[in-house]
Amino acid sequence: MTLSDVLARIEPIDPRAQQGAALRQERLTKPSGSLGRLEELSLQLAGILRTERPTIRGRKVIVAAADHGVVAQGVTGYPQEVTAQMVLNFLAGGAAINVMARTAGVELMIVDAGVATPLPEHPDLRVVGVGRGTADMTQGPAMSRAQAEQCVSAGINLALEVAENGADIIGAGEMGIGNTTASSAITAVLTGSPPRETTGRGTGRNEEEMEHKVAVIERALEVNQPDPTDGLDVLAKVSGFEIGVLAGVVLGGALARRVVALDGFVSTAAGLIAHSLCPHVSGYVIASHLSVEPGHRIALRHMGLRPLLDLNMRLGEGTGAVLAMGLIEAAAACLTEMATFAEAGVSGSATGEAE
Amino acid sequence: MTLSDVLARIEPIDPRAQQGAALRQERLTKPSGSLGRLEELSLQLAGILRTERPTIRGRKVIVAAADHGVVAQGVTGYPQEVTAQMVLNFLAGGAAINVMARTAGVELMIVDAGVATPLPEHPDLRVVGVGRGTADMTQGPAMSRAQAEQCVSAGINLALEVAENGADIIGAGEMGIGNTTASSAITAVLTGSPPRETTGRGTGRNEEEMEHKVAVIERALEVNQPDPTDGLDVLAKVSGFEIGVLAGVVLGGALARRVVALDGFVSTAAGLIAHSLCPHVSGYVIASHLSVEPGHRIALRHMGLRPLLDLNMRLGEGTGAVLAMGLIEAAAACLTEMATFAEAGVSGSATGEAE
Repeated sequence: MTLSDVLARIEPIDPRAQQGAALRQERLTKPSGSLGRLEELSLQLAGILRTERPTIRGRKVIVAAADHGVVAQGVTGYPQEVTAQMVLNFLAGGAAINVMARTAGVELMIVDAGVATPLPEHPDLRVVGVGRGTADMTQGPAMSRAQAEQCVSAGINLALEVAENGADIIGAGEMGIGNTTASSAITAVLTGSPPRETTGRGTGRNEEEMEHKVAVIERALEVNQPDPTDGLDVLAKVSGFEIGVLAGVVLGGALARRVVALDGFVSTAAGLIAHSLCPHVSGYVIASHLSVEPGHRIALRHMGLRPLLDLNMRLGEGTGAVLAMGLIEAAAACLTEMATFAEAGVSGSATGEAE
Repeated sequence: MTLSDVLARIEPIDPRAQQGAALRQERLTKPSGSLGRLEELSLQLAGILRTERPTIRGRKVIVAAADHGVVAQGVTGYPQEVTAQMVLNFLAGGAAINVMARTAGVELMIVDAGVATPLPEHPDLRVVGVGRGTADMTQGPAMSRAQAEQCVSAGINLALEVAENGADIIGAGEMGIGNTTASSAITAVLTGSPPRETTGRGTGRNEEEMEHKVAVIERALEVNQPDPTDGLDVLAKVSGFEIGVLAGVVLGGALARRVVALDGFVSTAAGLIAHSLCPHVSGYVIASHLSVEPGHRIALRHMGLRPLLDLNMRLGEGTGAVLAMGLIEAAAACLTEMATFAEAGVSGSATGEAE
């Protein structure tokens, strides 16, 4: 399937299933609206999964890693090797995302989407061979348009595979030294916000270093002039391979009619690219948490998303997505499994009106 | 053990374990502080469980139900029978708390702490035989001081039993038509706030009915003059049997050195009573979520607690506590199971300084 076929085949979520779910919510043994955000979430799940009684079976996070040429501009406190080292940590099970996923019974798929340091072959590592780290976006495009299409297509295929294998929620996690710089650039272009507002400290920067980061992003935008109406152009010029793969994961998840749990700022920047290619994806996407990165709020608002959690996190990897999956599962289960007033013989089914 | 023995034996959480945990957090393979609230939470868990590598095994919610004589004043939109009907729903597994607990693998203990309508015997129902519904607090004390002590003692024993049987987190859930009225009264007395600020709609009330609810609480406080320095006096005069049992659960959980997950407004009002009897309990307590009830924020602030979740929920039953348990488990697991920079061969352990 070509990318334009995929974009044409993604349908909006199903309003009839949502209406059925809304009627069912009113009959469940609790005061109307008393589960708050979980009730709204349950209607979205009904619309995505096309049933008024949705169930969540498999849950999987795709963690895509890649390197960024823009680190040559000194935008981050960590050396580039850390990307590869963290991929090895993921494969060994020692990172935060591994621990959280194990604890919550969520599966992981680790993807080398374009890490600069060569990684040894590993049975649990999926390799997307589009490139070994992007070019420095202050000197020209981060990647070619062909590469951008290749990573999106790879991400779509990964999401379809994961959906085929039983995942009802697909989380979008990432690792890549320098990738908050790319995400701030993407968010600036696609939301029309100045880089100063979409840029934060990333992992460990002081005020002066942050000013430098803003200047680097401004230069990248000036050099490349990405077209805000063309998500692939933005992806190619100021993005990264892992971000392209995750944009594909969002598109593929929507095509497969699965719930897509975005994680933090970088994952949401990938969501912005998917959204610019196909606005219907916003119905399939859940904002797991609000990152400390200031651009995250701007990116979420642009897509009309409200985060479920606000825990001052800024790690990425998919950690926020795993935490939110527990809430998503609970929302679906309450809608699907709770007794109605009639079934339980509880008085007061009319009190929905009292609100 | 008498109540005063219990109060004397509750110790503050362990600062040495917290310090050890803080040092360990800095060595884990993530930027310092990037797990935000989960890192703070992990230190609290270390202090409670007396180890720098805490693990969470069993998780159990004690759901205490009782009736309130103050419903005679027309403070709620539901008939009193709903309390008993919902207990039967809990026992049949059809309520929101059942569904959420099943989904998350959390156990429940259902307690008849003083339901007015006689309930049939049931193998899964624990009965605290202190009374069948409180008296109307606008006419005099809701219960006697002896009854207040009895429910607190019963709650302490339930928590000790649950802890003995392997629960590392004990959730405090409740059901009781009229119990937000009692909780607003308790919160007003123990935080020194006017009833107008501590009172909300409860489950389904309009503006006029809410004004009436405020007036009822003001009358109860005037009639009873509860002593704000004496938690048992407040409990006896303007509280409820389930709230007394949960105050005991908080005390018993702290005595047993277990994590106590408060739920919403009513559960937190029980926490306020426990806190007024023994301020050390606040170290053991986690505020799971922020309820829509306006008094909840006031009660939490009084104990220096910040809620983990904010999902516009107002159901009670322990539903917020179950949702928060996933976050609590994740916080403990990251601290205990993540690889250190040295173990994983990841560069940048010094970047904690960069923040």
